[in-house]
Amino acid sequence: MPINPDAVGAKSEPTRQSWTSKDALLYAVGVGAGQEPLEELQYTTENSTDIDQRVLPTMAVVLGGGGGAFAQIGSFNPAMLVHGEQQISLHREIPVEGEIETVSEITGIYDKGKGAVVVSEATSTLVSDGEPLFSKTMSAFIRGEGGWGGDSGPALEWERPDGDPDEVVTYTTRPEQALIYRLSGDRNPLHADPQFAAMGGFDRPILHGLCTYGFTGRGLLRALCDGDSARLRSMYGRFSSPVLPGEDLTVKVWRTGDGPDGASTAVFQTEGSDGRVVLDKGTCSYT
Amino acid sequence: MPINPDAVGAKSEPTRQSWTSKDALLYAVGVGAGQEPLEELQYTTENSTDIDQRVLPTMAVVLGGGGGAFAQIGSFNPAMLVHGEQQISLHREIPVEGEIETVSEITGIYDKGKGAVVVSEATSTLVSDGEPLFSKTMSAFIRGEGGWGGDSGPALEWERPDGDPDEVVTYTTRPEQALIYRLSGDRNPLHADPQFAAMGGFDRPILHGLCTYGFTGRGLLRALCDGDSARLRSMYGRFSSPVLPGEDLTVKVWRTGDGPDGASTAVFQTEGSDGRVVLDKGTCSYT
Repeated sequence: MPINPDAVGAKSEPTRQSWTSKDALLYAVGVGAGQEPLEELQYTTENSTDIDQRVLPTMAVVLGGGGGAFAQIGSFNPAMLVHGEQQISLHREIPVEGEIETVSEITGIYDKGKGAVVVSEATSTLVSDGEPLFSKTMSAFIRGEGGWGGDSGPALEWERPDGDPDEVVTYTTRPEQALIYRLSGDRNPLHADPQFAAMGGFDRPILHGLCTYGFTGRGLLRALCDGDSARLRSMYGRFSSPVLPGEDLTVKVWRTGDGPDGASTAVFQTEGSDGRVVLDKGTCSYT
Repeated sequence: MPINPDAVGAKSEPTRQSWTSKDALLYAVGVGAGQEPLEELQYTTENSTDIDQRVLPTMAVVLGGGGGAFAQIGSFNPAMLVHGEQQISLHREIPVEGEIETVSEITGIYDKGKGAVVVSEATSTLVSDGEPLFSKTMSAFIRGEGGWGGDSGPALEWERPDGDPDEVVTYTTRPEQALIYRLSGDRNPLHADPQFAAMGGFDRPILHGLCTYGFTGRGLLRALCDGDSARLRSMYGRFSSPVLPGEDLTVKVWRTGDGPDGASTAVFQTEGSDGRVVLDKGTCSYT
């Protein structure tokens, strides 16, 4: 087995990444902003009348890597890796341009039998003032790497409230969505190349999980934050089914009350065109 | 009248522009490549199995400016400028990355009564070998700047063959198309900002004419060149009606015979969703 379960605790070197206004605009159209062209102009344009450009909070997932420590878990077939979970905590609004320094650490490697789950936490600091900007936790499922008799990891406590959701937002992904989203950094051919996708066992290239995550974040902003990026504090979700580019994504949101530091909380699920849950066990906090 | 009809002959300084593989991919998705996700992978990906990345020939219109000499015609309200005509001549295939040096010249300023037409020619040389890569001629219509009693300019000889077109290709533009296309360089808010578009007399932001031109170029490649970018030698069209993002574009092509240097020729028109002609008097040559 080529991955090493003892790599827990391994840290990456600090890495720096800068981004520009154009990068933020490209990320926004990558996650479908602008499909209602007269909304979200603050995220898709830098020069509209009386509108200052802002950054979608989920752009945190394409900034600063966050999986840098993955290089220390050993070798595996990248076609077998799928994104498992993604959490972001936003300490403040992401500026339109900037530079961050990021350190990531492997915080868990779990044996799921058919595969391994590797968890990585990353913290990113804005270089200009040395203060934290956001932190992220992600887990990846690597098929074929489990079965060494290791710990299967903690269970997540999550409960969906009874009754209909309080808010429902539906967006359409485009057949070409992954070809736009990948220009924000994740060039994994699983999302573009039919031959590569077939090697991973998929009939067609699948959408990036983090693209679904970005669509979902837009839905949460609209449903809970009046579209104001500064109000989303944190967001977690588990990728439960691949999405094909072109599917509709429906974000269902249940408000759950008050959270820490004066924030409110909600849980959510995102469904694909056929109603199956594609991003599950979602939680978020917002002001 | 703030523009100066005597500016004919004014040249720009040589300007240099470089581009990357990513710029070429972004241009391709900006003009809708990838909407049939399994086609055009050579233009939308750099790492698909057994496919080398290539560049859509119409990317010439976003490289090297070409309107640099416009700075010498005087001042005008940019909301009143619409693209009139665009011609490109490709001396060879555009590389995936490179640097060009471009010189442009004002070659005509014509009085159309309700506005002025300004014609600019640009030639671009690949810096790495000093040889010509492409040349372009564009004209712009500037509403409100005509009426000084000047020459109205030459008439274009163009005839559509009788009968049905030999080839028909239809593509869909997305409501968000202009928000993607503009990231290739033309940030004119006429194409994104409803308030700015209203100042120009439009109910909604309109698609970039050159985005329609890029969709049309894809249609010509498919209809005449088996999708091979190296085979399109030249392309001309006149923008005859604004296109709203979200409209379908139908490219109708009539083969017209042999052209110079062993090339073949065709004429074309591109229609919007309602069948009106949006890119008119089209001609192209190909091998």
